Amino acid sequence: MTSSPPVHRELPIGITMGCPAGIGPEIILKSVTALSETALPPLVVIGDGKVLERCGRELGMPAAIKYWQPGMVPEKGVLNLYSLSSFGPELRWGHPDGETGRAMGRYIEETVKLIQQGTLGALVTCPISKAALNQGGYRFPGHTEMLASLCAAEEYAMMMAGEKLRVALVTIHIALAEVPGLITREAVARIIGIVGRSLETDFAISQPRIAVAGLNPHGGEGGLFGVEEREAIAPAVAEAAGKGWRVSGPWPPDTVFYQAARGNFDAVVCMYHDQGLIPFKLLHFEDGVNVTLGLPLVRTSVDHGTAYDIAGKGVASPASLISAFRLAARIVNNRLQKGK
Amino acid sequence: MTSSPPVHRELPIGITMGCPAGIGPEIILKSVTALSETALPPLVVIGDGKVLERCGRELGMPAAIKYWQPGMVPEKGVLNLYSLSSFGPELRWGHPDGETGRAMGRYIEETVKLIQQGTLGALVTCPISKAALNQGGYRFPGHTEMLASLCAAEEYAMMMAGEKLRVALVTIHIALAEVPGLITREAVARIIGIVGRSLETDFAISQPRIAVAGLNPHGGEGGLFGVEEREAIAPAVAEAAGKGWRVSGPWPPDTVFYQAARGNFDAVVCMYHDQGLIPFKLLHFEDGVNVTLGLPLVRTSVDHGTAYDIAGKGVASPASLISAFRLAARIVNNRLQKGK
Repeated sequence: MTSSPPVHRELPIGITMGCPAGIGPEIILKSVTALSETALPPLVVIGDGKVLERCGRELGMPAAIKYWQPGMVPEKGVLNLYSLSSFGPELRWGHPDGETGRAMGRYIEETVKLIQQGTLGALVTCPISKAALNQGGYRFPGHTEMLASLCAAEEYAMMMAGEKLRVALVTIHIALAEVPGLITREAVARIIGIVGRSLETDFAISQPRIAVAGLNPHGGEGGLFGVEEREAIAPAVAEAAGKGWRVSGPWPPDTVFYQAARGNFDAVVCMYHDQGLIPFKLLHFEDGVNVTLGLPLVRTSVDHGTAYDIAGKGVASPASLISAFRLAARIVNNRLQKGK
Repeated sequence: MTSSPPVHRELPIGITMGCPAGIGPEIILKSVTALSETALPPLVVIGDGKVLERCGRELGMPAAIKYWQPGMVPEKGVLNLYSLSSFGPELRWGHPDGETGRAMGRYIEETVKLIQQGTLGALVTCPISKAALNQGGYRFPGHTEMLASLCAAEEYAMMMAGEKLRVALVTIHIALAEVPGLITREAVARIIGIVGRSLETDFAISQPRIAVAGLNPHGGEGGLFGVEEREAIAPAVAEAAGKGWRVSGPWPPDTVFYQAARGNFDAVVCMYHDQGLIPFKLLHFEDGVNVTLGLPLVRTSVDHGTAYDIAGKGVASPASLISAFRLAARIVNNRLQKGK
C-alpha cells in the first residue's frame, strides 16, 4: 500500500472578496501583480465579476480577469475569478445591505467547500461587515467564528501576525463586559496549546516562547485589582508549562507587548480583542495578517475592516492582503514539511 | 492695592523617592546631572538619606547630597535632600514591607504640604508599590487617587504624556470587570473637559483635538458587541462638542492610537487603564511621563513601576524621571503664562 503524495502544494489559494461594497475589490485588483510571483501558488478570487470589472473601470485599473469554475485549471499571473454574484449599478460603494451580506457569506461558504473537496489549498479573506453578514442571515459575530462552524472546529483561535508581533486571543468579538466571565483556566490553557502547536507547525518555530498577558491593570497587582490572574490565568500557565510548553505569565498587560516586540517572545496570548489588537495595529497598521489557528484548513485574512469611508476611492492599501496571501502560502509549505 | 507677583516660578520642584527598596534611589542619583541644567528649577528630593547614600556607595555613583529642611534655600546643581526616614541594612533591595510602605506614603504627604504652603512649586513622583502602600496604612489604589484625596480634588484624571502620544483615563486602578459599569455619560464628559482644559493650560495647545475611544471591540460594531458607545460615550462626545471642545468619537479602540501617534489628535480619552497604557508604553516605554490633570498642584511622575526585580543592580533607566521633571517645569511655566 503506497501513501498518496501530498496534493495541496500546488493547489491554488482562494481569496474571498468580502463585502462587495467595501474595499475588497480594490485591494484584490491592486494585489494581482505582487501575487503573480512564480514562487507563489496561483490565486482564485471568489466574489462578484461585475463588481470587480466595474471597480477596475472606475479606478483605471484594468485587470486580466479570467472567469473560472471548479474543474478548470487556474492560470498563474492572472486573476482567476469564480463569480458567485452579480451586482449591477444598484450597488453603491460604502453601502452594504442584506443582499451584499448574503453574497459575501456565500463566497466564504463556497470557498470552504472547495478547500474541503481538495480544489483549493488555502483561504485568504477580504474584510466583511459583521452587521451586514447578520442582515444577510449569517448569525456569526465574525469570520473566525463562521469558519470554525463550517469546519466543525471546536478548538480554534484568532491570531494577528506581523514581523514584530504575534498576538492570539482568548476571547474575540464580544462586549468587554462579558470578557471576565469567560477567562477560565480551561480557556486560557486551550489557547496556549493551540498557539504553541501553530507556532511549531505553521510558523516552523521550535520551542516557541509564549507570553500570557494578565487581564487586569498591572496583572491584578496581587489581587488588588481583580482575581482572574490568580484564579484562572496563573493556573493555566502552570498547566501548560507542565505539558512542556515554554510559557510564562501572567504578565502586566501594559509592558508585555513591548517585550514581545523587542523579540523576547514569539507570541502573546491575550485575554480580549483590544488587548491584542491595540498594540498589534500600532505596529502593523498596514501589513498585519489575521490567521485562524486550530482549523483543519489554512486561513489568513487582512487585518483591517471594510473601510466603507474610502471604498471606491482608489486609496486603499493592498499591503495586508499581500502579506496575508504570502503567509498562507508559507503556512501551507510549513505544514507540508511537517507532514501535517 | 497691588497684586502680589507669582511666587512659584523659581520655586524648587520636589521629587518623592517612592519605594525605598525599589529603583527610586538609583534613578534619582542618575538624574541629578541632567536635572542640573541652569534653565531648570532647583530640585529637592523627599525621601531617605541613608538609603540614597548607600545606593550611591553600592553602585559607585557618589552624589553631592545636601541635607535640606523647609526654610533653607535649595542650591542648584546639587541633590537637596529632605530626609524623612532612615532605613539601615535591614532594608533589602526589591523587598518592600509595611515600613517602607509607610515611609513612602509620608514622603508624598509631606511634599504635598510643602507645595500647599508655597515652599515647593511642583511634585514629581518616583514609583511606589501599591501593595506596600496599603500595608503601610494608606488605603489608596495608587498615587493619583492619594493625591486627589490630599488636595480634596474631585475632578481629576490620569494622563500619560509622550512626544508621540498622550492618553487620559476615564477609569484607572480597578479590575477590568468593574470598568463597564463606570462608563457613564457624566464620567466621560468630565474627563473630556479636564483633558481639554489641561491641553490648553498645561500644554499650551490652542483648540486641542481630542479623540475619545470606544469601550468595546470595533467600538461596539453598531451595538452587536456592547451598548456603552451608544448609551454613554457618544452622548458624552456630543455634550462636550456642544460646549465647544474639538472632540470626536467613539473611535474603534484598535485604530485610534495609530491615528493619534501619526499626529491626528492631541490626546486620546481612554475608557480603562490598559486601553491607554498598552499603546502608550509601546511607544514610550522609557521616556513616558504620567501627569495628574485637574489637581491644584502640578504633578508628574515616572510611567514605570518599582521594578523590584532590578532594584539595586544599577541597570535602571532614569529617562522617564528626567522627562517627568522637565515636563513639570514646563507645565509650571505654561500655567504662569496663562496666569493660572
